[in-house]
Amino acid sequence: PSTTARHPPLISTFLNSASNYTISNYLRHLTLHPHLAGTSPSSAAADYVKTNFESLHLQTHVTNYSVLLSYHLHSSLTAHFSNSSTAVPLPLTEPGLGSDSGVVKPYHAYSPSGSAYGKAVYVHHGREEDYRALASAGVDVKGCVAVAKRGGGMSRNAVVVKAAEKGVVAVVMYTENNDRARTYYGGGVERGTVLDGVGDPLTPGWGARINGDVERLGMEDDEVLKRFPTVASMPISGETAELILGSLEGARVPHWWRDGDLFGNFNRVGPGPTFLNFTYQGENKVATIQNVFAVIKGSEEADRFVVLGNHRDAWTYGAVDPNSGTAALIDIARRYSLMMRLGWNPQRTIVLCSWDAEEFGMIGSTEWVEQNLVNLGSKAVAYINVDCAVQGPGFFAAATPQLDDILVEVTKKVTDPDSLDSTLFEKWRTSTDGPLIQRLSDVFSDFAPFLHHAGVPSIDLYYGKDFPVYHTAFDSYEWMVKYGDPFFHRHVAVAGVWGLLGIHLADDPILPFNYLSYATQLQNYTHSLSKLLEGDVSLHPITSAIQELEDAAKQVEEEMKKLREEESEGHVIVLRRRMLNDRLMLAERGFLDTEGIRGRQWFKHLVYGPASEGKLGFFPGVADAMYGSSTSRGEKKEAKKKQEIIQHEIWRVARAIQRAASALKAELT
Amino acid sequence: PSTTARHPPLISTFLNSASNYTISNYLRHLTLHPHLAGTSPSSAAADYVKTNFESLHLQTHVTNYSVLLSYHLHSSLTAHFSNSSTAVPLPLTEPGLGSDSGVVKPYHAYSPSGSAYGKAVYVHHGREEDYRALASAGVDVKGCVAVAKRGGGMSRNAVVVKAAEKGVVAVVMYTENNDRARTYYGGGVERGTVLDGVGDPLTPGWGARINGDVERLGMEDDEVLKRFPTVASMPISGETAELILGSLEGARVPHWWRDGDLFGNFNRVGPGPTFLNFTYQGENKVATIQNVFAVIKGSEEADRFVVLGNHRDAWTYGAVDPNSGTAALIDIARRYSLMMRLGWNPQRTIVLCSWDAEEFGMIGSTEWVEQNLVNLGSKAVAYINVDCAVQGPGFFAAATPQLDDILVEVTKKVTDPDSLDSTLFEKWRTSTDGPLIQRLSDVFSDFAPFLHHAGVPSIDLYYGKDFPVYHTAFDSYEWMVKYGDPFFHRHVAVAGVWGLLGIHLADDPILPFNYLSYATQLQNYTHSLSKLLEGDVSLHPITSAIQELEDAAKQVEEEMKKLREEESEGHVIVLRRRMLNDRLMLAERGFLDTEGIRGRQWFKHLVYGPASEGKLGFFPGVADAMYGSSTSRGEKKEAKKKQEIIQHEIWRVARAIQRAASALKAELT
Ligand SMILES: [Ca+2]
Ligand SMILES: [Ca+2]
Ligand SMILES: [Zn+2]
Ligand SMILES: [Zn+2]
Ligand SMILES: [Zn+2]
Ligand SMILES: [Zn+2]
Repeated sequence: PSTTARHPPLISTFLNSASNYTISNYLRHLTLHPHLAGTSPSSAAADYVKTNFESLHLQTHVTNYSVLLSYHLHSSLTAHFSNSSTAVPLPLTEPGLGSDSGVVKPYHAYSPSGSAYGKAVYVHHGREEDYRALASAGVDVKGCVAVAKRGGGMSRNAVVVKAAEKGVVAVVMYTENNDRARTYYGGGVERGTVLDGVGDPLTPGWGARINGDVERLGMEDDEVLKRFPTVASMPISGETAELILGSLEGARVPHWWRDGDLFGNFNRVGPGPTFLNFTYQGENKVATIQNVFAVIKGSEEADRFVVLGNHRDAWTYGAVDPNSGTAALIDIARRYSLMMRLGWNPQRTIVLCSWDAEEFGMIGSTEWVEQNLVNLGSKAVAYINVDCAVQGPGFFAAATPQLDDILVEVTKKVTDPDSLDSTLFEKWRTSTDGPLIQRLSDVFSDFAPFLHHAGVPSIDLYYGKDFPVYHTAFDSYEWMVKYGDPFFHRHVAVAGVWGLLGIHLADDPILPFNYLSYATQLQNYTHSLSKLLEGDVSLHPITSAIQELEDAAKQVEEEMKKLREEESEGHVIVLRRRMLNDRLMLAERGFLDTEGIRGRQWFKHLVYGPASEGKLGFFPGVADAMYGSSTSRGEKKEAKKKQEIIQHEIWRVARAIQRAASALKAELT
Repeated sequence: PSTTARHPPLISTFLNSASNYTISNYLRHLTLHPHLAGTSPSSAAADYVKTNFESLHLQTHVTNYSVLLSYHLHSSLTAHFSNSSTAVPLPLTEPGLGSDSGVVKPYHAYSPSGSAYGKAVYVHHGREEDYRALASAGVDVKGCVAVAKRGGGMSRNAVVVKAAEKGVVAVVMYTENNDRARTYYGGGVERGTVLDGVGDPLTPGWGARINGDVERLGMEDDEVLKRFPTVASMPISGETAELILGSLEGARVPHWWRDGDLFGNFNRVGPGPTFLNFTYQGENKVATIQNVFAVIKGSEEADRFVVLGNHRDAWTYGAVDPNSGTAALIDIARRYSLMMRLGWNPQRTIVLCSWDAEEFGMIGSTEWVEQNLVNLGSKAVAYINVDCAVQGPGFFAAATPQLDDILVEVTKKVTDPDSLDSTLFEKWRTSTDGPLIQRLSDVFSDFAPFLHHAGVPSIDLYYGKDFPVYHTAFDSYEWMVKYGDPFFHRHVAVAGVWGLLGIHLADDPILPFNYLSYATQLQNYTHSLSKLLEGDVSLHPITSAIQELEDAAKQVEEEMKKLREEESEGHVIVLRRRMLNDRLMLAERGFLDTEGIRGRQWFKHLVYGPASEGKLGFFPGVADAMYGSSTSRGEKKEAKKKQEIIQHEIWRVARAIQRAASALKAELT
């Protein structure tokens, strides 16, 4: 058996073995029935993936976890309009579904059960600035039922938690569909989780294995309670929102809130005169979830892991989210298997992962990462995630910066699916304003545990900026064929990029990591930050640390060049490559801090991670210190304390960068 | 160049190059003048080590740190006896020292400055049970000056902190010298640190580099304040203590306190009628300290570190503590250098370390470990510490259990210094009741940061159980020649074991680690624990985890056997050995928990580490939960809460053991 490094034609085998028909077939099978995590159709979906892996003669296994999931029992929303004495029940389900469709009614997972009765008030995205605007307009939201619009960088949990802080008694959330003219299926409702953080709430920091003894925290434990909002919420359709919002009176909608379709149809925020009667009954319960794996053991470095992952569970049919990715994953397995029949065995181990319960809060991937943390930390090369492979047109990718080069290189080898005679890279570059490759600060898919907790360099890929049937009953095979990817050429392109990345990361003798890109990115962050900081806070610790990282990166580039020129395969060279690769692999771990982000200790990465508010997009601890809710009210002492905290968080980031530099140098002081 | 594995005669070269005269000469030079950390004689001592390393043509460097040390300015202790109206000044310094001796007056580093006036009360070792005994005898210690005797498993900090909790206004501590008849120099006073925890107080968790930007916490920061006691303390001699204690009246000394010499001379605990007037003025200030290193770069695995360390700073002359060890370290350097001239180069890198400021709180070693944590964590094979190489007769060693076998094997190759025709091992074994090898739970030397913070397998070696001139002005070359090691044969033996351990850890193709010993030790701990636990707390999680570790250890033993049989040196075998060695090296890291010991977060190791009280000697988190100060007062709810906390700590230990097993297996679930 040979690696692609020693036998390059194997790469052409990979690229030429693409088949849009085969991928479409996988997708069709996966999306026949809804397959919500923890339900029996979900087992069938796991079996489908497992059977496909096994039939390709790949080493396959399934890990089961017992985790706390959350299901809809009952919900109702009734409006008391001022022009009528009767209560009007508002539609909460989607049109066109038979009663036996098996599609779960729209709900927010982990919403507490509750009833509430109060005036409806529009809170826009529900950010601090939105509430400030309402307050300045004399609007008092206490005791109201808030109507919030998804967006503005707010997670569902953040919207509900902040609303509760403001005294709101229940929240209904709707999604504006800008695409309505073209692809919108009227009446869709966006399901979703309101869980804070990722992973099973009862086992924070360890894997919730199904067999054997596992500690589970009690439902009353503070560590568990802090994951859930304290007021109930539910999603509603744009149409239902329109019904409510159009009936509101009172203060005018602030002009800077005016974005999106519906604003033609309402211009008052309330509260009232419309009253809403809200009831929700949900059930949090422990359920079994399954991750499915295919492992291709490395021929020379079986203890180095290249991990490709996609989640498999869906709110409804999951055609876009996530099974376009699942189809691509199975297709990659098919093509890797084909290469192996032609004599390929990767140098490093490749692990193909089908996660469960991502929709509930990245649970399947997080439990696995928590359980395998010691080995992922010491041996995982990279994690490449594809959630929705295809949402629409246009390629998008986010990555940790040392992977920028290899990402670009790979996209140059894949044909663009939407043009004649263009590489994916050329199309990507010309279609993109601003930075080509995005970064992974937000916690919206299964790369979160890998990057933010385990410090593994990561990539997230997808086609299409977003899509209007997200988390609705209309995310079906029909929608994909009609709007998402009629000829499945985009699926083929994603599988091509994904699979080729896996091949390079597993077979390149020297890991294709470039830390100069990381240093440059960090410098850009520091420059942006310098324009936002006030007072006498100093960024010097960070600039100083970045210089260390840059010097180390340059030194490593030199060593990489020399080693690449070595053709010998003697054991001395092999060890030298191994030693250099260890440095390249472990540098990202340096950005982790055992104390994590203040108030979010599980998130250890200090460069990329979730921040409470503010759109810094990097250095979440610094962002929290600058924009966190305990904002200075002008009092001098509080301002000084705030400056000290910002400075301390800057020091922490500086030390994280120094640790990465130190790991890259691998020298003892 | 060759390793000892490929050229075994090199080991005989090492053993045969011993020279007691040379070692004695090193010691004589090192102990000519007192060399307290942060003072100029300390620089001279650092230079001595550095010059020796350099003259042996070893790659030598010095790292400087700016850390908070603490010095004596003024102290006085006056007694008002009931039979006299005049105040009697009590002697606080040691006899026989000229005023220009340069020996620092006896004091407790980091004691706050303060004056106090109160009745003297004897509190024995100052443990919770000692105060309970006083309370039952109707003794009220509030407002008193406590006289405490060193011992009973209490650190100096713990004695003072508990005394302060009980309302004591100042503490004087004395050391009983059971050896008085033979080797005791009358009037010796035991200096020492009252710092809690290890490392520079102003830089908890990061290295206090002297160059460049380093964050320093403020002296008023809670993280800093918690390291110091809140009442002043000082050490006094046994003679001075006798003066005070013999004058006390009131309640009788409990019979079970009666151990040691002085009890013939007093039998009342007070308080009073004697009053003590205590004043202490100290100065905490930032000073420069220096670690000195000699690095022998590995020929094949330069990125694997075998670390040998000894501290160099002393309270006074340091003949036993620590420079008997320094002499041995330099001697090892001499002999390694000789081997290198004969063609030796170790496979892995050997680092010889001379630490500064250990006496203040393991500061030099801790700053270096904090600064190099990413690389020590991923690449340090083992740490072998020798603090006092020779204190008296009899060999003692403590180790993490996977090193038991190699320790035994090495001691079989070294001649016993005190008998004819015996190996050190035989003498060691026949002289030892109970377990041969001790364990490393206490935090009394420089292995603490390596094991408790970085999870590096560690060994601590010394000759002689303890010695009566500990931390006094009489720890001099003359004492060593007269009592400690007249012919320096014990120094030779320690250097032999130490140096040979370094050689094996650097040269054995497969690391000589046996995790079955660890599993057995953990089983013994669990068995002991089961006899101490009450209520319905379950140890099943731990026994279950130990089974996983044992299974993994057996599997590894099989693989080790197979790999040892391989003679080939091809790159495939080399990589397989490397992969197995990585598993052996990294398993200990699994015992670390990012949250550390509750209330002592810097101490991450959950099997070995400092506990507040109780003599469990392992699982410090469990020990704290069982014996911590918030002991149940019989209230049912508190008892239940305590049981829950104990159970939770048991789960945490179980997961730590599972992590070690997982690292040993290096398989993804
Ligand atoms: Ca978990
Ligand atoms: Ca420090
Ligand atoms: Zn998804
Ligand atoms: Zn989704
Ligand atoms: Zn010492
Ligand atoms: Zn000492």
